Amino acid sequence: LSKLPDELSLDPQDWDAFRTTAHAALDQAIEFLKTVRQRPVWQPVPAQVRKAISEPAPQLGSSLDEVYKQFRETILPYPTGNIHPRFFGWVHGAGLANAIVAEMLAATMNANCGGRDHAAIYVEQAVLTWFKELFKFPSTSSGLLVSGSSMANLVGICVARNSHADANVRSAGLQNYSRPLVTYASSETHESVVRAVEVLGLGSASLRKIPVRADFTMDVQALREALKADRLAGAEPFCVIASAGTVNTAAIDPLDELASLCQQEGLWFHVDGAFGALAYLTDTMRPRLKGLERADSLAFDFHKWAQVQYDAGCILVRRGDLHRAAFSMRPAYLEIMPRALGGGENWPADYGPELSRGFRALKVWFAFKELGVQKIAQIVEQNCQQARYLGQRILREPSLELLAPVSMNIICFRFRPEGLSADALDRLNSDIVADVQEAGIAAPSTTRILNRLAIRVNITNHRTRRNDLDILVDAVLYKGQDRLAAANAGDPERK
Amino acid sequence: LSKLPDELSLDPQDWDAFRTTAHAALDQAIEFLKTVRQRPVWQPVPAQVRKAISEPAPQLGSSLDEVYKQFRETILPYPTGNIHPRFFGWVHGAGLANAIVAEMLAATMNANCGGRDHAAIYVEQAVLTWFKELFKFPSTSSGLLVSGSSMANLVGICVARNSHADANVRSAGLQNYSRPLVTYASSETHESVVRAVEVLGLGSASLRKIPVRADFTMDVQALREALKADRLAGAEPFCVIASAGTVNTAAIDPLDELASLCQQEGLWFHVDGAFGALAYLTDTMRPRLKGLERADSLAFDFHKWAQVQYDAGCILVRRGDLHRAAFSMRPAYLEIMPRALGGGENWPADYGPELSRGFRALKVWFAFKELGVQKIAQIVEQNCQQARYLGQRILREPSLELLAPVSMNIICFRFRPEGLSADALDRLNSDIVADVQEAGIAAPSTTRILNRLAIRVNITNHRTRRNDLDILVDAVLYKGQDRLAAANAGDPERK
Repeated sequence: LSKLPDELSLDPQDWDAFRTTAHAALDQAIEFLKTVRQRPVWQPVPAQVRKAISEPAPQLGSSLDEVYKQFRETILPYPTGNIHPRFFGWVHGAGLANAIVAEMLAATMNANCGGRDHAAIYVEQAVLTWFKELFKFPSTSSGLLVSGSSMANLVGICVARNSHADANVRSAGLQNYSRPLVTYASSETHESVVRAVEVLGLGSASLRKIPVRADFTMDVQALREALKADRLAGAEPFCVIASAGTVNTAAIDPLDELASLCQQEGLWFHVDGAFGALAYLTDTMRPRLKGLERADSLAFDFHKWAQVQYDAGCILVRRGDLHRAAFSMRPAYLEIMPRALGGGENWPADYGPELSRGFRALKVWFAFKELGVQKIAQIVEQNCQQARYLGQRILREPSLELLAPVSMNIICFRFRPEGLSADALDRLNSDIVADVQEAGIAAPSTTRILNRLAIRVNITNHRTRRNDLDILVDAVLYKGQDRLAAANAGDPERK
Repeated sequence: LSKLPDELSLDPQDWDAFRTTAHAALDQAIEFLKTVRQRPVWQPVPAQVRKAISEPAPQLGSSLDEVYKQFRETILPYPTGNIHPRFFGWVHGAGLANAIVAEMLAATMNANCGGRDHAAIYVEQAVLTWFKELFKFPSTSSGLLVSGSSMANLVGICVARNSHADANVRSAGLQNYSRPLVTYASSETHESVVRAVEVLGLGSASLRKIPVRADFTMDVQALREALKADRLAGAEPFCVIASAGTVNTAAIDPLDELASLCQQEGLWFHVDGAFGALAYLTDTMRPRLKGLERADSLAFDFHKWAQVQYDAGCILVRRGDLHRAAFSMRPAYLEIMPRALGGGENWPADYGPELSRGFRALKVWFAFKELGVQKIAQIVEQNCQQARYLGQRILREPSLELLAPVSMNIICFRFRPEGLSADALDRLNSDIVADVQEAGIAAPSTTRILNRLAIRVNITNHRTRRNDLDILVDAVLYKGQDRLAAANAGDPERK
């Protein structure tokens, strides 16, 4: 035995030194968050910093202090920007201070939430039960935390596909099913829906993009006609995907009407409520989302309007039995044990494609436990009020044009001086957005509304004040006029 | 303007109080990790604790102190157990102290790593480049961090499917492709491979389970015959999935031979190296994994043998162009911008099904930066040596039986007293595992080897000492003999 090698562990050799570095990092993290308003929303990662980050694989280690120092200098100063009160890009939540605590604790426990019997599994079940009840889903429904609505849409549509009568897709696959399976969504549906349909092997061509009305919501009459035409052509419609808040304009498809149609027609009703579903928690918005509670599957995110840290999304499925039947698989090494660690009734791996899963439920639990449903819902209301405030400001500005109705929390507008061609306006507004971002003032994003480039302002940010929206508008006006003046003066620096 | 409502934020009203709680939580987290050896590996979650966790949705919040107190009392004491030196279940890594720091910092930045131009994207690229080089993949290869090898297998096989000549699966779907697509894996392949094939719409019946040899590796001759038979029957083989470390016995399929076969036959070569791929980093094991570097796609985990916290897996794809072509989708609201935040070349969302993605690269970066590749590889070696040590101990014990050869780090054995039927032996060994877990002594898991229940000991744990393995064996012997004695005495407590 004496010739056996000494054994090594990767734990700190000096726990006190570790403790000192960890506390210093925590202090600086808190200070970073507390002072976020004093810094630019975003700044580019300089070339020399990118180079420093791209060092080759470290064969030998270094001290945690040294690693933390590299992090502080090369990584921390260059976040996405969504923690800042003037981040309005895409649909990003701003995050919560309590997640710093929740994530360090989750890292300490290092749970694998694929299954088995331990506290993290019960925390996830608790969170799922909260949202089943808040969204008025039955107690027999099921759910799963996932990385976000892209995965949630994938899981929801997968359950729809696998539950489809007679097709036996899990075992036989799609190639053995002769009648073409068809899904429906509006032309404003999110790309993650298209990608889910592709990953599932259904093919994006089988997803019918139904036209929208002037308010960018699905035209249900056009859907009825598409269903009829597909059936006449021998295809087999099986799923309608509604948006509860489209990505471009936060339009809400007519959920209740679609739920009734799906019921009549025997179709699966999937709702992509990535950010909009959370508005169901407010008394003012709930009526507009009526029908959400009738979904067969509902995708939504905690990291958007619920402000939980990335990543944290969720899928709820009305019929838990179908959800489980779509994914559950128990080989010998995952056989459920009658007792002990290999026991437990609710193995998340039975409800989705992942067997390894971190403890993402903990940050959701911390968020709602500390802040409460009502306060988080109040932020949703506040952001909608702020969007209306911004809409009114834009209407008052003669050189700005509102490009879509204000449905919830998203505003699409543009700087529209007289005398520019459509293409020149697109280029100008794209430049303005980049200018405002690069100046670190604010971070709106861009999209296209009726094929014209729009400055898109999404407000899912608990730190935003009305004054931040005024700063954004002022910056857009200033950068726009500056670019116009430079163009008129033939400034070679501006193209 | 005076009638506009006051604005709320969710930031702490008292940052000093927040700081105090956060530091207290950090101290206790570090103490928890430092003293892990003094506690039971696992303990059941008592009914009253499960009830406390399952409280209804909190309409109103409470103080962070109160939430943290609930966490400390009801959640922290009941982890999965894999942080403990005597956790040997399934394939779980033990985690690193530095992840406590990395995860709190990631939570502070709250990056969304779907895309755009910010530091987190470059950190992920750096980590991917490290492993491309360590696994000898070309610089034109691509990669993506995912939750684990379940997702990595799904992504890899999806790229294989979508890259398949003529099929045009992304757009047209599988139903429009007439020749049946067929995949191959050994009968010992992991369930996540089967589930991936199902999610992708190929159907589990299209996955041929090729028999294994006595050492549980794929029988390549049987694969050749299956390919021939399928082609004769009009099917279209397109992908072979090899295991670099099977879940039951850590068997390594003949990778180099399979790589050559796939090259000759024009098949995609996917390697599921969930834990085993990391052994490629050691000089002693690399020769046995030869051919891994020839994979078209390689799935592996950081949260297993690299000891990074859950969840952290990875997919590498030899041809980055095919990887991107399988997933990339750029609607107007994700159009790449020539500069500023909407710019950047490497958007992870172009390489997988997820658009929302947390900053999981940071904990991988911290792990390898602090510890270095060599030290982590040393743990891999150490765990393999420990497995051999355990194997020898089992061979020396007359009442224990080794059920499979020791390939790397997994041992399958059983307590085998004379005179028991096969079924009684299965029940007895299942009971022993539950007894040992419930006593908090150690946490092996179970599986079936040649249809007999095995006590399965997986060692991917940097905290494990040889002495921990002796404690496990002693406990198995003690619990086994105790159960035998009780059965002989007709003890009604023991069934």
